[in-house]
Amino acid sequence: MSHDVASAIRDELGNKTKPPGSLGQLEMLALELGLAQRTTSPAVDPARIIVFAGDHGVASDGVSAFPAEVTAQMCANFASGGAAVAVLARSVGAQLEVVDVGVASDISHIEGIVHAKVARGTDNLRTTAAIADEASLEQALQVGRETVRRAVGEDIRCVALGEMGIGNTTSAAVLTALLCRGDAHVATGRGTGLDEAGLASKRVVVEQAIERVAVHADDPRECLRQVGGFELAALVGAMLEAPAHGIPVVVDGFIVTAAALVACRMDATVRPQLVFAHRSAEPGHALALATLDARPLLDLDMALGEGSGAALALPLLRGACAILREMATFADAGVSGAQE
Amino acid sequence: MSHDVASAIRDELGNKTKPPGSLGQLEMLALELGLAQRTTSPAVDPARIIVFAGDHGVASDGVSAFPAEVTAQMCANFASGGAAVAVLARSVGAQLEVVDVGVASDISHIEGIVHAKVARGTDNLRTTAAIADEASLEQALQVGRETVRRAVGEDIRCVALGEMGIGNTTSAAVLTALLCRGDAHVATGRGTGLDEAGLASKRVVVEQAIERVAVHADDPRECLRQVGGFELAALVGAMLEAPAHGIPVVVDGFIVTAAALVACRMDATVRPQLVFAHRSAEPGHALALATLDARPLLDLDMALGEGSGAALALPLLRGACAILREMATFADAGVSGAQE
Repeated sequence: MSHDVASAIRDELGNKTKPPGSLGQLEMLALELGLAQRTTSPAVDPARIIVFAGDHGVASDGVSAFPAEVTAQMCANFASGGAAVAVLARSVGAQLEVVDVGVASDISHIEGIVHAKVARGTDNLRTTAAIADEASLEQALQVGRETVRRAVGEDIRCVALGEMGIGNTTSAAVLTALLCRGDAHVATGRGTGLDEAGLASKRVVVEQAIERVAVHADDPRECLRQVGGFELAALVGAMLEAPAHGIPVVVDGFIVTAAALVACRMDATVRPQLVFAHRSAEPGHALALATLDARPLLDLDMALGEGSGAALALPLLRGACAILREMATFADAGVSGAQE
Repeated sequence: MSHDVASAIRDELGNKTKPPGSLGQLEMLALELGLAQRTTSPAVDPARIIVFAGDHGVASDGVSAFPAEVTAQMCANFASGGAAVAVLARSVGAQLEVVDVGVASDISHIEGIVHAKVARGTDNLRTTAAIADEASLEQALQVGRETVRRAVGEDIRCVALGEMGIGNTTSAAVLTALLCRGDAHVATGRGTGLDEAGLASKRVVVEQAIERVAVHADDPRECLRQVGGFELAALVGAMLEAPAHGIPVVVDGFIVTAAALVACRMDATVRPQLVFAHRSAEPGHALALATLDARPLLDLDMALGEGSGAALALPLLRGACAILREMATFADAGVSGAQE
């Protein structure tokens, strides 16, 4: 069936009034979206950007340039529309949903976000399992699954995933190193802007965590529990839910890609649902993308997270769908084809 | 004055709720748009994509995979909304204007395009001046200038430039080689899809034209007259008009960049008005971009022209403006800054 859809889309693209293949990666994207939605006429609107937020015990080790309370403060900033992803969601005409899955402080007073807190942050991944028990992990996975089920129920055609969590580039670095068989040096970057000394000490934290968790490297679910955070688990859950609904999932940057490594290892049917938005400036992202055989759409030296890159990629998805649905064929338009 | 605007924009971006520089090239883009519009609060809407069309005498040498009549046929396809740039203009919410500046056949019956034909195509650049006389060149330049003046008069905030002309990658290759001191091998590509033999014979045409015109390499205006086409001259005229109005100009792919080489050599105040949309798969584009010290926003292996890449870049410009205008500052949002 996916073979039939692929052939039909390739034929349609070949008949459009343009030299064959001249829309490059946009044609690949049209094909991927068609396969993800199992139709020759994919569409991404309405699209929803879903941002999962959670805190990380490892933040107390000084792995971030920003203090841990910023996670909660940014949730308020998402809700009031002033954060980058909120601005960009409006700019590209996408909905924004913010989900508290593990913010450390009580933010139940913030209106306009989904309150689905599993716990008040994770434990320190350097020394212990970030998510204490299997039941909490399962609960966080279910939060992610439920957001996608709700989106599908509300006729959303495409979800884009983002995250907020001070310390979560450390989790992403550990997961990337474990699942891509890389090392701390390759997987660890400056995150929100560490200086040289901060980067060096973050690498030590990542190394210790890798050493602690390496025994579980063949068990992606256990890696996720050991490393966290709750927002990464929700991201994984969202991706695991996508194949059943034929909904494409736009992957933001380094952290969401780390979640994709876990999800794709847990379920091989996830990968065809994923579209990779951008190449982050975080060095570990290249390793994760290569492992997933992913070529992102944008490369703008961004490293903000939140879903900011995913938001900026949405118009490209829209354009790819429009090409397939709206472009004239040579026959329609009475345009001469290439000469023999 | 531009120094003040630049400082003010850098300060604003530095106060937004994000790690410094974390929006990467999007922040650079906000700065460039602010400088082009001479404001700390740039905006690109309404935006208009302007496509200039013209035919090339050199098409009779078999330098294109498509027959010359496709130029006129595609003008009809633009007008009826079925061509790639028409579909993408709708998708990104931009206006589309098509200008006949030198199409070989009479297309005055096509409604919905601007009829400003200077001549019925150029002469063959391989053997003679493509644009026979200085008056015709000036007329084509004025067509371009007038489209920008009209856009400004109609409150357009940003123009994106595209082109249609069977044979015009040959003109672009010759101009690029002449103005970047490259050679035919580096500057010449497959255009709309030449095979190996077609590429080899196109290179011979480009070599002969370079040899013929090289004596004028220090005179960009005369290079333009010798090489054509009328649509390239109109593109140059449009760019030359931009600085006086403080309007940013989005440069599409290889052909529009070749026009930018001419325009920037003619008037040094043009370059700060230009935003480069994408890196074309045409090999000569890299040379032209490097000469202009330009880093395009997108790299999607596209090689269609028309303004298709420029259309896809517009949402990024919109996003950059939105960041500057709408994002909260740390103070506004009560978010903690980076730790000392």
